[in-house]
Amino acid sequence: MAYSAPRGTVDILSDNSGQWQQLEQLLRTICANYNVKEMRTPIFEHTELFTRAVGDTTDVVTKEMYTFEDKKGRSMTLRPEGTAGIARSYVENKLYALPEKLQKYYYMGPMFRYERPQSGRQRQFHQFGVEMIGLESPYVDVEAMVLAVTVVEALGLQDITLHINSLGDEESRDAYREALKKHFEPVIKDLCYDCQQRYEKNPLRILDCKVDREHPFMNDAPHTIDYLSENAKAHFDKVCELLDDLEIEYVIDTNLVRGLDYYSHTVFEVISDDPKLGAGATVGGGGRYNTLISELGGPDVPGVGFAFGMERLLIANSDVDAEEDGLDVYVMPLGNEAKDLAMQIVTMLRANGFTCDMDQCDRGLKGQFKSADRFHAHFSMIIGEEEVKKEVVNMKCNHSKEQNEVLLENIVAFIEAHYEGGHDHE
Amino acid sequence: MAYSAPRGTVDILSDNSGQWQQLEQLLRTICANYNVKEMRTPIFEHTELFTRAVGDTTDVVTKEMYTFEDKKGRSMTLRPEGTAGIARSYVENKLYALPEKLQKYYYMGPMFRYERPQSGRQRQFHQFGVEMIGLESPYVDVEAMVLAVTVVEALGLQDITLHINSLGDEESRDAYREALKKHFEPVIKDLCYDCQQRYEKNPLRILDCKVDREHPFMNDAPHTIDYLSENAKAHFDKVCELLDDLEIEYVIDTNLVRGLDYYSHTVFEVISDDPKLGAGATVGGGGRYNTLISELGGPDVPGVGFAFGMERLLIANSDVDAEEDGLDVYVMPLGNEAKDLAMQIVTMLRANGFTCDMDQCDRGLKGQFKSADRFHAHFSMIIGEEEVKKEVVNMKCNHSKEQNEVLLENIVAFIEAHYEGGHDHE
Repeated sequence: MAYSAPRGTVDILSDNSGQWQQLEQLLRTICANYNVKEMRTPIFEHTELFTRAVGDTTDVVTKEMYTFEDKKGRSMTLRPEGTAGIARSYVENKLYALPEKLQKYYYMGPMFRYERPQSGRQRQFHQFGVEMIGLESPYVDVEAMVLAVTVVEALGLQDITLHINSLGDEESRDAYREALKKHFEPVIKDLCYDCQQRYEKNPLRILDCKVDREHPFMNDAPHTIDYLSENAKAHFDKVCELLDDLEIEYVIDTNLVRGLDYYSHTVFEVISDDPKLGAGATVGGGGRYNTLISELGGPDVPGVGFAFGMERLLIANSDVDAEEDGLDVYVMPLGNEAKDLAMQIVTMLRANGFTCDMDQCDRGLKGQFKSADRFHAHFSMIIGEEEVKKEVVNMKCNHSKEQNEVLLENIVAFIEAHYEGGHDHE
Repeated sequence: MAYSAPRGTVDILSDNSGQWQQLEQLLRTICANYNVKEMRTPIFEHTELFTRAVGDTTDVVTKEMYTFEDKKGRSMTLRPEGTAGIARSYVENKLYALPEKLQKYYYMGPMFRYERPQSGRQRQFHQFGVEMIGLESPYVDVEAMVLAVTVVEALGLQDITLHINSLGDEESRDAYREALKKHFEPVIKDLCYDCQQRYEKNPLRILDCKVDREHPFMNDAPHTIDYLSENAKAHFDKVCELLDDLEIEYVIDTNLVRGLDYYSHTVFEVISDDPKLGAGATVGGGGRYNTLISELGGPDVPGVGFAFGMERLLIANSDVDAEEDGLDVYVMPLGNEAKDLAMQIVTMLRANGFTCDMDQCDRGLKGQFKSADRFHAHFSMIIGEEEVKKEVVNMKCNHSKEQNEVLLENIVAFIEAHYEGGHDHE
């Protein structure tokens, strides 16, 4: 029988994993610059967490979750996104009681949504996200947005635009909800079954319906930004002012609502027209969530965050040079005695912090040189019968083509003397 | 309502995640030295993969798997270990056809077993593992063992012993199975129900029964090592000889059988008596699996590997100094204008690769100095009304206590001139 990876999942093979590591390292470095620390939450959570946090009328929750019962009959769900777990952890671990009122976290890792697999959309996908919890401050909204833009710029993506909008506070949203219902009232019977439900429970979700998106009433639906309360407007104006001060270009996109229920005030997306991603590609986005923490049983603490699909970031990063990861030394033994000696030499070199490998296939020189080449080895170390007898090795530099006979006890000194531009050996 | 992490899972909070990152980086560096590349396989796989690879009479498969049906009714299981996924990927992606006959992979990440949670044993736990696939060579067994020992030594664990044993090849195992059945035949009715099943299907599993482990017949059960075929003995002898050559201490532990079905020939464990882990703690282990690849539908290709529980490695690593991760600069604005200016300065400094942060809480100096202290900031940058007017900032070095007024345009130059021993800024 042949086994395959589950539909919608992929293996990251060894010729790709280096790119992932490089991306992760870049994200870690940028987060360190922003004093944002990593938090890791479990791969699965109680299902109710997502129903409550993400919203029980969202597509994510109603259609796309990997939900199962554990052996005790508790309903568990593979996390479809990262914010709910961070917020749950913040409440459960009472992180609001820490002396630093503003807590800044990042996460990266696998997420799971049961969607129809298609190019660039997997059932197991990966997100990098940031959450800044503790303050209802436009400064923090902007800090999050600048971090998001910085990430995308660091990846070398061209033609980036920051789209922003405001959903307002509770007062604004109440007013807006009424306006939306009034707008759709004449045509409610023409909309899909789901939208008729949404009309009653959460009319905002009508706007991201995939079925009704061509309906003429969608285009001239009212905009949240026209229903902002005084407070919400002041918050949004300050966000715009700070972005202006920082000379960060943005457009106010009145259609931007984001598909999850927990957002209020500022929402944003980073859109790229870079040919690598295609025109108008959403690289990622997020927004402010002021009631999420309290809805999960915590105090009334606001937050703001965003998430990027890492698969997209990886495509963006694809023509950044892969880090030079050639071996320092490839050891090429000829014969049994030489092989035993080679084993000791590679072990010693590795213990000294050099990257190295040896032939384990008992091949002739030709085959071994091919491997040295494939591994981009700086040195090939040839050990034949003659060398074993003389207690030396033959070091060939694969760049200069120079060859030297080196005494066994001088190998490390030789490499250090002839390879100063190489790797860093602590 | 209050939400909690699922039983048997834990959050890795921001004050711990740095230790995880450090451990992962150490493992990546050692693997690079060994020319071992990372492979990442999905978090869940088709259930049959584990039933087949791990063995349908093992505790892992019969009792501990997180199994669920996806929306199409396919049975999926959260991976309980890492080898099966790597082996499946090796076969599915035809990695045996690559020119390098010996493929060396490592993985690290979450694994899932539904066990009774207890100290140091979680339902979501993390493993680091290595698989070397392609050759039936005692040299490769030893390479894997040396890598395992190197990891444990690099973590500074004391009192380590490498335990090794051989389960032999198929011929040896047939002979041994008969001997085992003969040994337990007189007492089979005294053994637990599970063991009675095992007696017929897989008598080797009787030896790791948790119920019958005190049974007197367990102690004098025959040992695999006394039933090795000529080939299997030659393989094992060469393993021992190579370990001797490399001066790696080991003990031959005839009771070592490992709990998974796929092993043959060499099996090994790294045992530590370090007080941090407690006496006789198994840090990790593994062995050779020569039939796994072909059982999963691939060609007849042998492999050898091992896995370590990362939670254990983390305890081992616990008194290694946490990397100095203090901020370069903490910016302390007083008043609204200063705050807007501060926002521009932190953005500029971060873009220049400095780690920095600012007060977002509109506190007085005292509260802000406390944060600078908590973040181990090298510099505190104070910006009051006076400074805004003069277009300067007040830079206080928190080590020398020296204060300097610095023109806005000279901030980066000032930091670079006064902070050469600091972080690496590319």
